[in-house]
Amino acid sequence: MANEKFGPVRVGLLGIGTVGGGTFEVLRRNQDEIRRRAGRSILITKVADLNVARAQEIVGPGVQVVADAREVVNDPDIDVVIELIGGYGIAREMVLAAIENGKHVVTANKALLAVHGSEIFLAASRKGVMVAFEAAVAGGIPIIKALREGLTANRIEWIAGIINGTTNFILSEMRDKGLPFDQVLKEAQRLGYAEADPTFDIEGIDAAHKITILSAIAFGVPVQFDRAHVEGITALQGEDIRYAEQLGYRIKLLGITRLRADAAGRPFGIELRVHPTLIPARRLIASVEGAMNAVWVKGDAVGHTMYYGKGAGAEPTASAVVADLVDVSRMLTSDPENRVPHLAFQAEAMSDLPILPVERIETAYYLRLRVSDEPGVLADITRILADERISIDAVLQREPAEGENQTDIILLTHRTIEQQVDAAIARIEALPTVLSKAIRIRLEELV
Amino acid sequence: MANEKFGPVRVGLLGIGTVGGGTFEVLRRNQDEIRRRAGRSILITKVADLNVARAQEIVGPGVQVVADAREVVNDPDIDVVIELIGGYGIAREMVLAAIENGKHVVTANKALLAVHGSEIFLAASRKGVMVAFEAAVAGGIPIIKALREGLTANRIEWIAGIINGTTNFILSEMRDKGLPFDQVLKEAQRLGYAEADPTFDIEGIDAAHKITILSAIAFGVPVQFDRAHVEGITALQGEDIRYAEQLGYRIKLLGITRLRADAAGRPFGIELRVHPTLIPARRLIASVEGAMNAVWVKGDAVGHTMYYGKGAGAEPTASAVVADLVDVSRMLTSDPENRVPHLAFQAEAMSDLPILPVERIETAYYLRLRVSDEPGVLADITRILADERISIDAVLQREPAEGENQTDIILLTHRTIEQQVDAAIARIEALPTVLSKAIRIRLEELV
Repeated sequence: MANEKFGPVRVGLLGIGTVGGGTFEVLRRNQDEIRRRAGRSILITKVADLNVARAQEIVGPGVQVVADAREVVNDPDIDVVIELIGGYGIAREMVLAAIENGKHVVTANKALLAVHGSEIFLAASRKGVMVAFEAAVAGGIPIIKALREGLTANRIEWIAGIINGTTNFILSEMRDKGLPFDQVLKEAQRLGYAEADPTFDIEGIDAAHKITILSAIAFGVPVQFDRAHVEGITALQGEDIRYAEQLGYRIKLLGITRLRADAAGRPFGIELRVHPTLIPARRLIASVEGAMNAVWVKGDAVGHTMYYGKGAGAEPTASAVVADLVDVSRMLTSDPENRVPHLAFQAEAMSDLPILPVERIETAYYLRLRVSDEPGVLADITRILADERISIDAVLQREPAEGENQTDIILLTHRTIEQQVDAAIARIEALPTVLSKAIRIRLEELV
Repeated sequence: MANEKFGPVRVGLLGIGTVGGGTFEVLRRNQDEIRRRAGRSILITKVADLNVARAQEIVGPGVQVVADAREVVNDPDIDVVIELIGGYGIAREMVLAAIENGKHVVTANKALLAVHGSEIFLAASRKGVMVAFEAAVAGGIPIIKALREGLTANRIEWIAGIINGTTNFILSEMRDKGLPFDQVLKEAQRLGYAEADPTFDIEGIDAAHKITILSAIAFGVPVQFDRAHVEGITALQGEDIRYAEQLGYRIKLLGITRLRADAAGRPFGIELRVHPTLIPARRLIASVEGAMNAVWVKGDAVGHTMYYGKGAGAEPTASAVVADLVDVSRMLTSDPENRVPHLAFQAEAMSDLPILPVERIETAYYLRLRVSDEPGVLADITRILADERISIDAVLQREPAEGENQTDIILLTHRTIEQQVDAAIARIEALPTVLSKAIRIRLEELV
């Protein structure tokens, strides 16, 4: 790795639970990739966790582990503090202390920001440090960056998000299986999709924290969680899900924020609310199922855009934490070499991996063959495919029309290398029972 | 507007066609919003276009218009040049000249970058200037930023995108209406979805330019359009669309790039290809219809994420151009006050718009009422709604079961203010024929 001009960024981690462990693992596993992009190493050098022994086991002997978060936020060698403690108490205290000590902060704590954001952002601005919080909303989906930077040209009109995976999972199950709320909640708890105390999720509080943050970014107002209207899904009944369905709608728990303007277009207020919502079944967001998250944003220039992905989990959330670390790292110097590189990787850290010729690609295939309608045709074809080590996923043989003596055979293959398919097709087309060139279309499961 | 500490950024615009006009309009219309976010004004001060008279009409008397792009790229007062000329010839020459003169460049020219990107990025790196190109791929969807910054923690495994609206519109129409390619193409040309010479779109070249750029960003390889495998949709037949449907698939023109690794996980090459592709109908991306774009990205930490929106058009593309202008503007100074603000707007430019109480929100409603099965019930209810100026969108009245003398009435209202609904519900619940509390769920069309 060429560019070590800037030296490593030293990071202190407060709390190494699910997301903290994921962050440590992603930084470790993708350290080369991240250094090639950021132009410098990003190292977690100190961890605070009440369970010192377990934390030390996760991070190994090379990283210092302490029980007291104060030792991290007061350590002059630490550049950036990641706060993953959660809640409003000690987390708030530690974030403010880190800021006071001139450290940048990365946090996934939506509750803290939705309630104490104004105080925290003011303190950070005064100290000239950054507080980054991509991980606070919708896990690894870079929705904060999209809103704050990508859509910066727009007057945002509204945002509507499925931003709580637990409730979306419960609603998907209630609809698919026709089961009542209580029963599905128990199942969700058993599967780990809902916590033992699910109040924050099912009462809409978690979603309200998140939409409060998005609202502040969209409209440039202070975070005001106490002004949000919050309804959860506990009162929702199966028959309403069914009636909605009959009318062409699905019910989702949405976080919604909207700029309201008078007839002359002058804004007079902002809606900020979380509640079960009927949405047209034909909208793409209505098909967001299970524990996935999706955020719709309507901007006056861009129109409708949507951002979709996993809203929780160790590594999706870590993806956002680390992206924030890289952003903060770039701010630590104003050297042009430390900007976002044109092609994401630093110019001297580009890869020389070859673009493969099409014969070497690997994908699945749809093959359509025009054949004589006589016995043994399919057997000949499948034998050739087997010879070329191509395995078949599905076969569809059209019934020949009355009086016709030709028909179509359609085959779906499993993933294979294109040159094997080329070879098989050449042999198949040479069969006397195959009457025309094979139609070949590639197939991707996108998994 | 408080913070004018930095003075305006002066922008030169090369080419004021559809996207150029949109960019000028968005910058003008949202100038306050953009200044509140960027902390400084962004002004187009000079425009080059061969049609000087028409250009002057668009920009008005306050902006200088010239016929020769050289006058813009050589103007020492210009900080940033927007290149919207298109093509490889004069566009390449002007971009290189602007870089040579130390100007930052914003471009929407995917063809130029896919073919001459390496030369351009090298020149820019040497001069320490930025070349920003969010608008080159998927219009206003901030996919370049998502890949380059938002997903920076990930080893990207693959990207698959519907990144050409013309072909997606044609395929949607072929499938929905069962019409052949030639006929749908003519219709698309008539509607303005396809150009008079549609070659770049229907032969997959435009999509290949875009996936070439995304591939370079995802995997840190040079842009290599000449190595891409490119197939368009001209040979696609209606029966294959129908057979695919029967097998549970849809056919989309995808741009695909994938990192290939051996059994031990060591990467050995990159796939880069555009072709019609069967994808499972149940995947969200299979439902992306008409002229919309969507990009799926699979990262090792974040999992699957998707980005969706309009891929073309004056203002969606302008949204990306202006976002790049703001990004570049932030780089013109390393002052912490010019960073991306915590809540997107500069601290001193926050809004004091109130969060509205829930009684003042405006939305549509689903109402379910348990009523006696007797004549006149619905009339009583609808009269109350009319009294409160609530208009009804749909009514569903369940047939009472055999021997039952109660039933459910379900009403969907048009958009209205919540307090009117509160008032109506209070009156409806007081009717002797209404047997229980009303169930009320809010409804959003999300348009």
